[in-house]
Amino acid sequence: MDSLHTLTATEIVAAIHAGRTTALAVAEECLARIAEIEPTVGAWTHLDPDHVLRQARAVDRMPEPGPLQGVPVGLKDIIDTADMPTEYGTPIHRGRRPSHDAACVALTRRAGGVVMGKTVTTEFANRFPGKTRNPHDPRRTPGGSSSGSGAAVGAGMVPLALGTQTTASTIRPASFCGCVGYVPSRGDIRLSGVMEAAGSFDALGLMARSVEDIHLYRSVLVGVPMAALARPALADLRVGVARTGFWEACEPATRDAIERCASALARAGARVSRVDLPAGFDAIAEAHRWVSSFEFVRNRAWEIDHHWERISAPLREARIADGMACDFARYDASRATLRACARQLDDIQRDHDVLLTPAAAGEAPLGLQSTGDASFSTLWTALNVPAVTLPLARGANGLPIGLQWIGSRWADDRLLAAARAVAHAIGPVA
Amino acid sequence: MDSLHTLTATEIVAAIHAGRTTALAVAEECLARIAEIEPTVGAWTHLDPDHVLRQARAVDRMPEPGPLQGVPVGLKDIIDTADMPTEYGTPIHRGRRPSHDAACVALTRRAGGVVMGKTVTTEFANRFPGKTRNPHDPRRTPGGSSSGSGAAVGAGMVPLALGTQTTASTIRPASFCGCVGYVPSRGDIRLSGVMEAAGSFDALGLMARSVEDIHLYRSVLVGVPMAALARPALADLRVGVARTGFWEACEPATRDAIERCASALARAGARVSRVDLPAGFDAIAEAHRWVSSFEFVRNRAWEIDHHWERISAPLREARIADGMACDFARYDASRATLRACARQLDDIQRDHDVLLTPAAAGEAPLGLQSTGDASFSTLWTALNVPAVTLPLARGANGLPIGLQWIGSRWADDRLLAAARAVAHAIGPVA
Repeated sequence: MDSLHTLTATEIVAAIHAGRTTALAVAEECLARIAEIEPTVGAWTHLDPDHVLRQARAVDRMPEPGPLQGVPVGLKDIIDTADMPTEYGTPIHRGRRPSHDAACVALTRRAGGVVMGKTVTTEFANRFPGKTRNPHDPRRTPGGSSSGSGAAVGAGMVPLALGTQTTASTIRPASFCGCVGYVPSRGDIRLSGVMEAAGSFDALGLMARSVEDIHLYRSVLVGVPMAALARPALADLRVGVARTGFWEACEPATRDAIERCASALARAGARVSRVDLPAGFDAIAEAHRWVSSFEFVRNRAWEIDHHWERISAPLREARIADGMACDFARYDASRATLRACARQLDDIQRDHDVLLTPAAAGEAPLGLQSTGDASFSTLWTALNVPAVTLPLARGANGLPIGLQWIGSRWADDRLLAAARAVAHAIGPVA
Repeated sequence: MDSLHTLTATEIVAAIHAGRTTALAVAEECLARIAEIEPTVGAWTHLDPDHVLRQARAVDRMPEPGPLQGVPVGLKDIIDTADMPTEYGTPIHRGRRPSHDAACVALTRRAGGVVMGKTVTTEFANRFPGKTRNPHDPRRTPGGSSSGSGAAVGAGMVPLALGTQTTASTIRPASFCGCVGYVPSRGDIRLSGVMEAAGSFDALGLMARSVEDIHLYRSVLVGVPMAALARPALADLRVGVARTGFWEACEPATRDAIERCASALARAGARVSRVDLPAGFDAIAEAHRWVSSFEFVRNRAWEIDHHWERISAPLREARIADGMACDFARYDASRATLRACARQLDDIQRDHDVLLTPAAAGEAPLGLQSTGDASFSTLWTALNVPAVTLPLARGANGLPIGLQWIGSRWADDRLLAAARAVAHAIGPVA
């Protein structure tokens, strides 16, 4: 057996169910891995090894092994936990201790998952970064806002982690850190007990090492066993390549990887075609900006009124200034723009099982002050469609580059089945 | 001037802005009214008069008077408050104290509102009732789940209160208690910091004494000054009378009131027509049941796993049993049913400014074990459209009966303008 900390969640569960290892042994290996590299990566804002070991022992005593039995999980620190602080990435909420677990946390524990700790989030899941560094090159950003979750999975500290996405907060760090990342269709997974950034767009985000693990954890979070993923033949797959208006902003390695993957799919018999998004989609970024800022500023009304001076200047001067400048008419018109675009995307998606598109401009950029360009996800998040990124490419510096797959709303099973088929039958393209 | 506790919020604000009274005087009058009738009504689960007076004095010292200056407000006890407990109507969360105010609470305080206390909710905003009695007849239910908010406004304890609605939880108690009740279009008002019952349907609910007050408070909760309501001539109003499939379940007084109101509108020149809802709408109640139960059970996963024996038997045996019996395929199909019905309703509403429909079967029923029939709101809540109930009728026992007005999604201004026109130009019909 491989070193336990390199196994996927699916492999861990199988090994524990078969009696080949225990939750305790897996937790100890992950803690050892964390002890080794956490000083460099800084993925965690709360980590209590003794509490982890207590949880693991309790899981080993569970009379019925669960579907996530003994799997260590990292939780973005905007997700409420009854037994650990939940601080939203701000000194304003230092030491905040929720009264009960968020829905996703309770469901994780019910399934036998072991909560390793809380991962670093940018301030209020917005842009101002925390301490986390990219595990593949500590001079680079891990992406944000689910920075610690992406870094923890990418560094082999845990096989699974939860983030959230309001703009690009799961797909971007997953791409930069070399993880599989997944954002479900709006509404499929409950956000009760998760800090709201902007409810029109917020979704939980899952980070893992394989599409199988995403499917497994999604089933746990939906709270009911899901049917096994279909196994579509690539020849049945209708793939639309959506370069988007940001194609020229991509690094050459990203454009190459998309083209190579599209060619490999076509060679394997898939029906690959180019999708030119409607010109009206150019308005999405601006509409997303106003809607998300408008909602963010209302959601943070208490902090704005009571702790204004403890909010970072970048947050005050960008997101909050936008939200305060936006009147209801602009908010309402922006939502209408997004609804119209979503209907157009529905029409496009009727002819495609998945769209293939960049997950980010390219490798994680140098520097820790910015979490990178969000444009490659904003488009899709704003339209509430599900997305998966697969770490199938590498850039000029050998760092991971994700390829993003977009599914139709409420057809996540089809998206995940297609993503798994691509990961198995095509694999790395660069 | 009338006794302060009978003024509308709009009148209170005007009186304070003009220097004719103070927030403190208003709070004292409302506290006196509460002291007098709370032993009979039981609207409050937390009420600290000293803390109310401290807030009122602080509001009187505000350098800039706010749009809700000095208005006493009641808050349903699933809405987080930093300075008061928030207990969700269950002993499981007795003494729970949130770290910060919900968005709607912070915006209320920013506007100069005075939080009088927390009002009784049914258990987890579901069906198992709290201690509240109908202020017009204490042998009768106030309705639920926003029982205390409806009773507090209906009894003249406060001019404004917040509830929520997932099924009928604002419109029904407003109708039973003789209030104006309003449920906004899905998403217009942030729910951050409010317990999620079922996110696909949850909306904040406003209770008041007039449509003007609803408009005022909505503007505060949206967080930005809203344009004044239009003043449509009744002759311009296109009113659809939607009897719904529950018409025969209505008390005669309810049917009479709807017919009288429709006739009065027609006499005033409005274009009144009958709207027969599509046969497919019969599936809405069942779809709402599965979607709301599925989501409720995930949201309460922590309580189910840690405090099962402290959840009421009725909640376990109905809502929770339903939610546990529902698989993802049924959940997903139910959501699809509701989306299809929403599109059909969009088509119907293109020809009507508002629909007129019963708010409840009739007067508040006798007994305190049930909060009444929810059918008259389920239909509309499930389709995420805005609703207003106006206390324009009385039943066989002289108790209030509400007439409900349904607007088009995201056209709440049009709905409120129409409701105000009806309230002023038509008024009570029975």
